[in-house]
Amino acid sequence: MDRSVIDHRSPEFAKLTREILPKLRAVFGTQDGAVIVYPASGTGAWEAALVNVLEPGDRVLSFNSGYFSAGFADAARNLGYAVDEVPLRWGQAIPPAEVEQRLRDDSRSDPYRAVLVVHNETSTGVLSDVAAIRQAVDAAGHNALLIVDAVSSLASVPFCFDKWRVDVGLAGSQKGLMLPPGLGILCAGSRAIEAGDTGGSPRNFFDWRPILRDNAAGFFPYTPATQMLFGLRTALQMLVDEEGLEAVFARHHRLASGVRAAVEAWGLSALCEDPACSSETLTAVVVPKDHDSGNVVDHARDRYGLSLGVGLGHLKDRTFRIGHVGSLNELEVLGTLAVIEMTLEELDIRVAVGAGTEACQRSFLASAAQLVESSSSRDLASAAT
Amino acid sequence: MDRSVIDHRSPEFAKLTREILPKLRAVFGTQDGAVIVYPASGTGAWEAALVNVLEPGDRVLSFNSGYFSAGFADAARNLGYAVDEVPLRWGQAIPPAEVEQRLRDDSRSDPYRAVLVVHNETSTGVLSDVAAIRQAVDAAGHNALLIVDAVSSLASVPFCFDKWRVDVGLAGSQKGLMLPPGLGILCAGSRAIEAGDTGGSPRNFFDWRPILRDNAAGFFPYTPATQMLFGLRTALQMLVDEEGLEAVFARHHRLASGVRAAVEAWGLSALCEDPACSSETLTAVVVPKDHDSGNVVDHARDRYGLSLGVGLGHLKDRTFRIGHVGSLNELEVLGTLAVIEMTLEELDIRVAVGAGTEACQRSFLASAAQLVESSSSRDLASAAT
Amino acid sequence: MDRSVIDHRSPEFAKLTREILPKLRAVFGTQDGAVIVYPASGTGAWEAALVNVLEPGDRVLSFNSGYFSAGFADAARNLGYAVDEVPLRWGQAIPPAEVEQRLRDDSRSDPYRAVLVVHNETSTGVLSDVAAIRQAVDAAGHNALLIVDAVSSLASVPFCFDKWRVDVGLAGSQKGLMLPPGLGILCAGSRAIEAGDTGGSPRNFFDWRPILRDNAAGFFPYTPATQMLFGLRTALQMLVDEEGLEAVFARHHRLASGVRAAVEAWGLSALCEDPACSSETLTAVVVPKDHDSGNVVDHARDRYGLSLGVGLGHLKDRTFRIGHVGSLNELEVLGTLAVIEMTLEELDIRVAVGAGTEACQRSFLASAAQLVESSSSRDLASAAT
Amino acid sequence: MDRSVIDHRSPEFAKLTREILPKLRAVFGTQDGAVIVYPASGTGAWEAALVNVLEPGDRVLSFNSGYFSAGFADAARNLGYAVDEVPLRWGQAIPPAEVEQRLRDDSRSDPYRAVLVVHNETSTGVLSDVAAIRQAVDAAGHNALLIVDAVSSLASVPFCFDKWRVDVGLAGSQKGLMLPPGLGILCAGSRAIEAGDTGGSPRNFFDWRPILRDNAAGFFPYTPATQMLFGLRTALQMLVDEEGLEAVFARHHRLASGVRAAVEAWGLSALCEDPACSSETLTAVVVPKDHDSGNVVDHARDRYGLSLGVGLGHLKDRTFRIGHVGSLNELEVLGTLAVIEMTLEELDIRVAVGAGTEACQRSFLASAAQLVESSSSRDLASAAT
Repeated sequence: MDRSVIDHRSPEFAKLTREILPKLRAVFGTQDGAVIVYPASGTGAWEAALVNVLEPGDRVLSFNSGYFSAGFADAARNLGYAVDEVPLRWGQAIPPAEVEQRLRDDSRSDPYRAVLVVHNETSTGVLSDVAAIRQAVDAAGHNALLIVDAVSSLASVPFCFDKWRVDVGLAGSQKGLMLPPGLGILCAGSRAIEAGDTGGSPRNFFDWRPILRDNAAGFFPYTPATQMLFGLRTALQMLVDEEGLEAVFARHHRLASGVRAAVEAWGLSALCEDPACSSETLTAVVVPKDHDSGNVVDHARDRYGLSLGVGLGHLKDRTFRIGHVGSLNELEVLGTLAVIEMTLEELDIRVAVGAGTEACQRSFLASAAQLVESSSSRDLASAAT
Repeated sequence: MDRSVIDHRSPEFAKLTREILPKLRAVFGTQDGAVIVYPASGTGAWEAALVNVLEPGDRVLSFNSGYFSAGFADAARNLGYAVDEVPLRWGQAIPPAEVEQRLRDDSRSDPYRAVLVVHNETSTGVLSDVAAIRQAVDAAGHNALLIVDAVSSLASVPFCFDKWRVDVGLAGSQKGLMLPPGLGILCAGSRAIEAGDTGGSPRNFFDWRPILRDNAAGFFPYTPATQMLFGLRTALQMLVDEEGLEAVFARHHRLASGVRAAVEAWGLSALCEDPACSSETLTAVVVPKDHDSGNVVDHARDRYGLSLGVGLGHLKDRTFRIGHVGSLNELEVLGTLAVIEMTLEELDIRVAVGAGTEACQRSFLASAAQLVESSSSRDLASAAT
Repeated sequence: MDRSVIDHRSPEFAKLTREILPKLRAVFGTQDGAVIVYPASGTGAWEAALVNVLEPGDRVLSFNSGYFSAGFADAARNLGYAVDEVPLRWGQAIPPAEVEQRLRDDSRSDPYRAVLVVHNETSTGVLSDVAAIRQAVDAAGHNALLIVDAVSSLASVPFCFDKWRVDVGLAGSQKGLMLPPGLGILCAGSRAIEAGDTGGSPRNFFDWRPILRDNAAGFFPYTPATQMLFGLRTALQMLVDEEGLEAVFARHHRLASGVRAAVEAWGLSALCEDPACSSETLTAVVVPKDHDSGNVVDHARDRYGLSLGVGLGHLKDRTFRIGHVGSLNELEVLGTLAVIEMTLEELDIRVAVGAGTEACQRSFLASAAQLVESSSSRDLASAAT
Repeated sequence: MDRSVIDHRSPEFAKLTREILPKLRAVFGTQDGAVIVYPASGTGAWEAALVNVLEPGDRVLSFNSGYFSAGFADAARNLGYAVDEVPLRWGQAIPPAEVEQRLRDDSRSDPYRAVLVVHNETSTGVLSDVAAIRQAVDAAGHNALLIVDAVSSLASVPFCFDKWRVDVGLAGSQKGLMLPPGLGILCAGSRAIEAGDTGGSPRNFFDWRPILRDNAAGFFPYTPATQMLFGLRTALQMLVDEEGLEAVFARHHRLASGVRAAVEAWGLSALCEDPACSSETLTAVVVPKDHDSGNVVDHARDRYGLSLGVGLGHLKDRTFRIGHVGSLNELEVLGTLAVIEMTLEELDIRVAVGAGTEACQRSFLASAAQLVESSSSRDLASAAT
């Protein structure tokens, strides 16, 4: 990104656009979905996902399972849509059965136009099962659009836009795509595109129609965030061409498993209730009662230069959050855990110093051994044939 | 901007915000106006300026004097406002008398809620007189808000938010602020803030209320474009602290005068009809009939690596545009003019090769001589006292 | 360093030079010593230190205590000086008593003109005691110049050019000064300057006389490594103005102590024989017999992206080296140690996984507790007065 | 170059070295010559070229035709060689006949061991004819090595190491290779390598033997200037792979011709006496008597931010120098000339303002027309066959 700005109406720019879009489709797991890039943020992507497909006053179903899903519902309400917000415990994944029931019960003349789902809730470290949610929608025989916030999951865990028949997926530049903030990115399927063509809300900046029209030739209807797009090209080369998406996903799983092993060894709880739904990109850790998680974040930053996430919303004093998204390796995870242990010790939050780091090391060693074993069996298998 | 991303919830980030906002106020020419920065573009800034102060269906008065003023009106229409768009010749400045007349004639029960003005129309190279437009509004005794697009004028020519009693001013990062695209910047006065507090349209991303609330402590309600803000800090230091705004304005005037002298020496017309309204940041040049200005742009780029602006809208084939905004000096302007002359020659658009460059040199020399003279008279004056 | 090259004959460049030199003197611990910067490497700095003060054929005394001290002696021999090289065990510090004895025994008509000392031997992780060596030279009543290689110690541990009466100190840019390689840096005292003025060997590039002459006005007699000098300015600001040299030294001590605690917990040996002489910037670890340290380096790099130092010279297969110099913090050290433990485990070099990391954590915690305690006693003391 | 430093003993580094060396050979115009890269400057390259092939006291023949050729002779003298320096007028190319005569007259028992030639004398803007000098050496039947300083010619004008049977060529990073200063680069032929193997002077840092030995595997015997090598790789890709050396040479010829046309139009003299020997990378312009060229340099820098070269040595007040080396295009040259004209006008050095710029434009237009014509004739020719 550290380069001269180029004219966004030049042939060189069109080439850049045409390199980026197919790789973004690969990241979203789609063949035919349309990818749209805005000079905005994830919050802007929320708005883009809504105003293109919803009419003013449309009803939507949403699930309050954390700070960001609550924010998504707020955005919809602020923009003039009628939001039915199902309260969940923060730490809970969206229960597909609940989705199915709510949609079965939806018998009004103006049925839900969309279901809003946050794939990975970064405030709680919980990953919901979009495939199961899609099945629930189907089982209810409901026609609602499935709109999925993948801000903190895209490019870190598998996202299967086509297979899950997502209607609109949305993300930002600053998580799995490893860039500074500044881009909102959407993926829209044919049902969504159609809804936008014939309806939607009054809109201008977030209208995807002129963007899709001009993108066909590699251009944008208004000034794009040129430098960010150069960065995006490089990030996509690293993810798709160099490391490979499968390897990126495996790496996130390996690192997240190590972090979870550490939290368990500390005798602390992850906020995520069901280990099967643990986020691969963030772990929210609950501090013991009588302690304030904000002190953990402050001490780690001031004393060790480590940036942990604060608790969000009503979890402000109860959790600190360990991010493990993007460009990250074993060394950085282990150093982070070791520093957290020292921080907890210095704040008199008693955990066995070294226990979590060691548990994480053992988790890494086991997964590496497994890798070796499985490739050995493959070798044996191929030797046998 | 080439640095690590910092946590936008850290104290270091709050410090950054608090360094930027006062200097942005200085650039807008305001003491009390509230500055709001969005991770968006100039098009996003249009939207922010509208949705915060207008109710759905509100009537606005706009002037079609070029591609960007037409776009601003389109944005307002797309967002559901009723736009009365006064057609002007592209090349004409907004006539204050016309503003006054239209407002005097505005006798409907739902009067215009706002007047939309593009300060510097980059498609035509025309600078409208906002002070006179303000007087026209006052003379008509009309209550409409004055919303001014300063995208291509801010930080290059004087902008007097307080003196002109502008209600909302708006700009982007990529012109006078010398940054890559990626920020939309607003300045809102007390009447606008009040309108937003009690009304406005359904909005979320562009709602300035949570931003103003969180900015007070140096933070943002959602992820800001961190790297851009670092760049903005540096740009503001260069403009406000190092070169000084007065000197920046004087430089733009000197360089623009040189370009205009060249166009005249070529015997070509600037699109701007009234020389007194010439833009200080861009000159649009009309090519002779039987020639296509697109060829000029292509040849200059392909043969000489020079990036000229294409004609926009219906001016596509008739004008090419010479930008002279931002970080620019005499050498670059003179090299640009000399290359344009070679380009015109090679495309058989006959102008005297060298004539424009020389006229520009003489313009620069005269303005320098004037400078010397005026400082000498000051010296004499002070010697006399 | 990521900026345009400026003219090295411009006033701006002179300003840069004049900012750098006083801070370099502070780093060397000198008031009056002359600092000279070459566009070269540490190897070039060796040569500069020799050719300016020695006549062809001059005798020098050197100590072979590692790969770099051996290289320094080789350089002297290659340049035509007569080197008496005292063999030491690699892992041993230079024994001051040996220095004194050798100088007492030096009764030839052409006595040693210089004693060559490597302050911190990076191949073995041993820090020699320059103050004691200076006393030994004095005790022997010998007139030899004291030439000290501080390549891997300068700006990381205290260097007291004036107090130790060093005659020539030398360093490079790529260790404690945290820059890429590309500069050779000397500090010369009055005896050395005098020797250079009246004698020395045939020389041109490394002749410090024209450099000292032109530096007085902020310039260089030939093209300097401009970008490196910009980087050097920033590095010196960070070390001298922001963190402060005392804090930098304390940090290196704290981090090095943690690494040493880990090596001990592993049950492995540091190559350094006397713990009191341990290097604060690098620890060389001996692998158990039957293992090849090269495998450790390869595995850590290929599997975990960790860059360890290989064994140098005859230690090639026996040691790997953990660098802890420059910009480094607790998190990075702990992550490094944890990864080394996994590497050792995977190579069947049995150490208790987690034991070293934990020992390092406890070392860090203890030093932090000490800090708190000592500042508390200070508080008590000042409360009492 | 703006990237992390990598370990110079890693496989990734070896790959870098092996990409660079063959392209450097292409730039030198050699198949078999050995290229050696030092972390030093052009002055260091002089030294390297001398100490590897000359014995102490060896006689060399050199020609004083400018500041840099005088400096090269000084370097040789300082290093202990016996220099016969033929005085020439500064502005004169080395006359091949003089070379031949001097070598024919060389009848001492210790004949000249080398002839030192500066290919492009940057202080005077004169390019000597190395091919003719080689013929002169041959015609004299003399055995001296031909050592050629190509610091300001390499990669800008053709250099034919093999065809001209140069024995040692030398350059730096900061001219035609478009990098910051910091590398000294040599190309050595078989006679030179042989001389170095069996003789040469006492040397260490500049000894090319260990470098050639370690380079074979992609490494260096001591720390190289890693960042510079990354920059060098990119520069070589631009020159050799992207633009192509022939096109680079043609561009330098076109730009230099334009500058010369301007100087002629100004009625000023180039210092270079014989237009056929004009440098393609720099033009030294003589100011009229009664004027001081230093004022031109100062005014251009202070008033217009233009960096001209000062007069060097005894030409200090008489010439200013216009560099046209490296990454440069028509726009930059024309802007430079136009600013020089304004500078001269403001200093009352009377030239017709605009005349030089126009002459340069016409020169560019003519060379472009020629290009078109020659490619048309080629088209005609191929159409005819």
